[in-house]
Amino acid sequence: MHIVAIGGSDAGISAALRARELDPSVDVTVVVADAYPNFSICGIPYYFSGEVAPWQSLAHRTHADLEATGMRLRLDTLATRIDVAGHRLEVREQDGRESSIAYDELIVGTGALPSSAGVEGLAELGPDDGVHVLHSMGDTFALDRFLDERDPQSAIIVGAGYVGLEMAEALTVRGLKVTQLQRGPEVLSTLDPELGRLVHDELDRHGVEVITNTTVERVARDGRGLVVTGHRDGAAFHRGADLVLVVIGVRPNTELLTSAGASTGAGGAVVVDEGMRTGLPHVFSAGDGVVTHHRLLGSTYLPLGTTAHKQGRVAGENALGGDARFAGSLGTQVVKVFDLVAARTGLREHEATTVGYSPVSSTAIADDHKAYYPGAQPISIRITGDRDSGKLLGAQLVGARGTETAKRVDTYATALFHGMTVEQLSELDLSYTPPLGSPWDAVQMAAQTWSRQHGRVSVPAR
Amino acid sequence: MHIVAIGGSDAGISAALRARELDPSVDVTVVVADAYPNFSICGIPYYFSGEVAPWQSLAHRTHADLEATGMRLRLDTLATRIDVAGHRLEVREQDGRESSIAYDELIVGTGALPSSAGVEGLAELGPDDGVHVLHSMGDTFALDRFLDERDPQSAIIVGAGYVGLEMAEALTVRGLKVTQLQRGPEVLSTLDPELGRLVHDELDRHGVEVITNTTVERVARDGRGLVVTGHRDGAAFHRGADLVLVVIGVRPNTELLTSAGASTGAGGAVVVDEGMRTGLPHVFSAGDGVVTHHRLLGSTYLPLGTTAHKQGRVAGENALGGDARFAGSLGTQVVKVFDLVAARTGLREHEATTVGYSPVSSTAIADDHKAYYPGAQPISIRITGDRDSGKLLGAQLVGARGTETAKRVDTYATALFHGMTVEQLSELDLSYTPPLGSPWDAVQMAAQTWSRQHGRVSVPAR
Repeated sequence: MHIVAIGGSDAGISAALRARELDPSVDVTVVVADAYPNFSICGIPYYFSGEVAPWQSLAHRTHADLEATGMRLRLDTLATRIDVAGHRLEVREQDGRESSIAYDELIVGTGALPSSAGVEGLAELGPDDGVHVLHSMGDTFALDRFLDERDPQSAIIVGAGYVGLEMAEALTVRGLKVTQLQRGPEVLSTLDPELGRLVHDELDRHGVEVITNTTVERVARDGRGLVVTGHRDGAAFHRGADLVLVVIGVRPNTELLTSAGASTGAGGAVVVDEGMRTGLPHVFSAGDGVVTHHRLLGSTYLPLGTTAHKQGRVAGENALGGDARFAGSLGTQVVKVFDLVAARTGLREHEATTVGYSPVSSTAIADDHKAYYPGAQPISIRITGDRDSGKLLGAQLVGARGTETAKRVDTYATALFHGMTVEQLSELDLSYTPPLGSPWDAVQMAAQTWSRQHGRVSVPAR
Repeated sequence: MHIVAIGGSDAGISAALRARELDPSVDVTVVVADAYPNFSICGIPYYFSGEVAPWQSLAHRTHADLEATGMRLRLDTLATRIDVAGHRLEVREQDGRESSIAYDELIVGTGALPSSAGVEGLAELGPDDGVHVLHSMGDTFALDRFLDERDPQSAIIVGAGYVGLEMAEALTVRGLKVTQLQRGPEVLSTLDPELGRLVHDELDRHGVEVITNTTVERVARDGRGLVVTGHRDGAAFHRGADLVLVVIGVRPNTELLTSAGASTGAGGAVVVDEGMRTGLPHVFSAGDGVVTHHRLLGSTYLPLGTTAHKQGRVAGENALGGDARFAGSLGTQVVKVFDLVAARTGLREHEATTVGYSPVSSTAIADDHKAYYPGAQPISIRITGDRDSGKLLGAQLVGARGTETAKRVDTYATALFHGMTVEQLSELDLSYTPPLGSPWDAVQMAAQTWSRQHGRVSVPAR
């Protein structure tokens, strides 16, 4: 039995680890396009901020750790074609040599590629010009070299999602003057604008210049450096900088699978079932290249590292003949931006509407712990629930670092997993001590606010 | 419609608030034995440590806040007898004047009293002698006065539960030399000893002298101060100090209800159903005086402030004619001891065995966030699950302050609420960012350790 996994990031490595954990007699080969298997791509911003050094420490596991699990790694090896009928994977090594690997079961974790979202100039300009993306260790080294050799004083970050915000912090800490451009009305568009505003304020406080409602159309060089042009509120927009970082999301990297006959669905990602089966015989896929089963939305595209880990684990088990199922995403996410933490899980109103709910929301501000104990800080919590059924649909939280906001969102995520109503949150037996909580936790106070605002507090029938 | 609630602590006030919230037309009177309604008894240790001042700030709500909700407060008024047939509550005011209050529905929240657990001398010696309990604002003022006027240099704390540990910290911070006596083999006996040991070590690091396996039999005065005597490991034990604080738990304060005909059950507490009905017509009860419906154990006695809030809320709704039900406790608790946080939810093995499970446990040590990001700290997590069904039964966590341990226990509590298996914890979509978590959260890593240790990792059937 020989399982071949393609991809050295979360999905491929998780699949390989799970297969080896379940059956230490199975042969597992992981084909990795670069020399950096199992690196924490989410950690890259902290390398640039100087909080993580050396870069090698970004590896979740070292090469030796991985090989100690009994898996075989084929580094610097690009998977070029799947011969589905012949059960062979064609590969090309760095020196151009081509060969093929026979497999019994194949797990494809080729992930995603940085999106350029129609911005002109990105094909022509690259790292040597100061135009960067940030999706791999190769991108990391290129940006690192540029920072060292060219000593840029200013940066434009195109995009204000998770990576964009983390890099705004990192480059600011490093001493660059950072301008952050966002197409929508507020940063962190995965949150409602009233909570995104809190993150915006935090960027302001730390000297990041945030410019919203700005569509970037082109990146170009002029005599002095780089120029980003586009439009803002109907007017032309242009801004120069020494460095431009484009972090406007990703698109699934599907070519290997689609050319073998796989179908694509939501977001152009490869369609898989809940067992991570592609429909091609003996070919599984997991991670940022495939559609995401969402517990509330059904099939969507929502690439996240946590999801890739879970899907990879399912694929690894099923490649051995199992019948594991990916239980589904809730889109739970958290980001730290300077001293603020912003988190969400589940749906916002516009998403809930698409699947037939009648969502209503309310925002509460609740202290992380009893106000009388020193250091209490407010957490802004926005709850979305279904007006008709009272079902919890989603929660968004923004609080200072140290307010346990990141793990408070997990309580909502666990409640959502079980389809609880907003009202039922008050039944949960959550922990309390004055330095760390309240008798009704902030999570529950926000739920009670929702009930009051949406007419769910009424005299019982006698 | 006149609802009378007895007790100014969590249960009574919650009941009154809920009734007024649901029906602002209802008359609500709260009969309070002292002058301090709605004070946070859990916050008292932080008054002694100097972190909270003045004492008035320990009030969850001020007198004016409470009256603004429309409830009427009768302070310094002791409820002496319930005339069930006549729907009247007899009371005695501070000046000895007796009267009665007519009610339509009565909610009794008389709580608990400090236990003396058979220690001799506690009836004879009191605050003026330096022998203290800590259960009310009156106790607080008495201890405060003693500390101010007598300037004790040393204290013996009898008991090492939540309040005992918090007071060991408070008195140490205040400059006293503290000796903590514990009957069992380890402090914080609500945790397994291997985790209790971590709390013990934290006490050691801060100069608290902890003496375990010590049974206290008597507190007495001698010429120089107070002497605590008993035995330890079969030998006589005695130790002197300027101050003795006895915090060895509570017993339900049931006399008012039992003399009216109510039954008692687990722990000698008053029996109530899940709607907080005592069985006496139009008489409800909630809080530390009644049995606790536990989702895993059934009827038990487990007095906690969080539970009193929930039960009071149910009683307030049902007094209006509703049919709310207390969903049940899981015994979720957390305590901060110096820079350590210890939490638990659900059952330990000996408890699970009593209700027919076949519990097995494992302890994992998982970082609170990715090790490469600065400040990562280990959390010790002990999971108990049922060997046969794989069902999660309980979790115990000890981690440094700042590791979000208090809200990580809430994820387990929410999972327990829904009867999840240990294995299913890995399906939860929990939040991740390198400064605050891991792709598999510590909560899930501990669950995976349990599965590996207890033979739940196996090759799928082909």
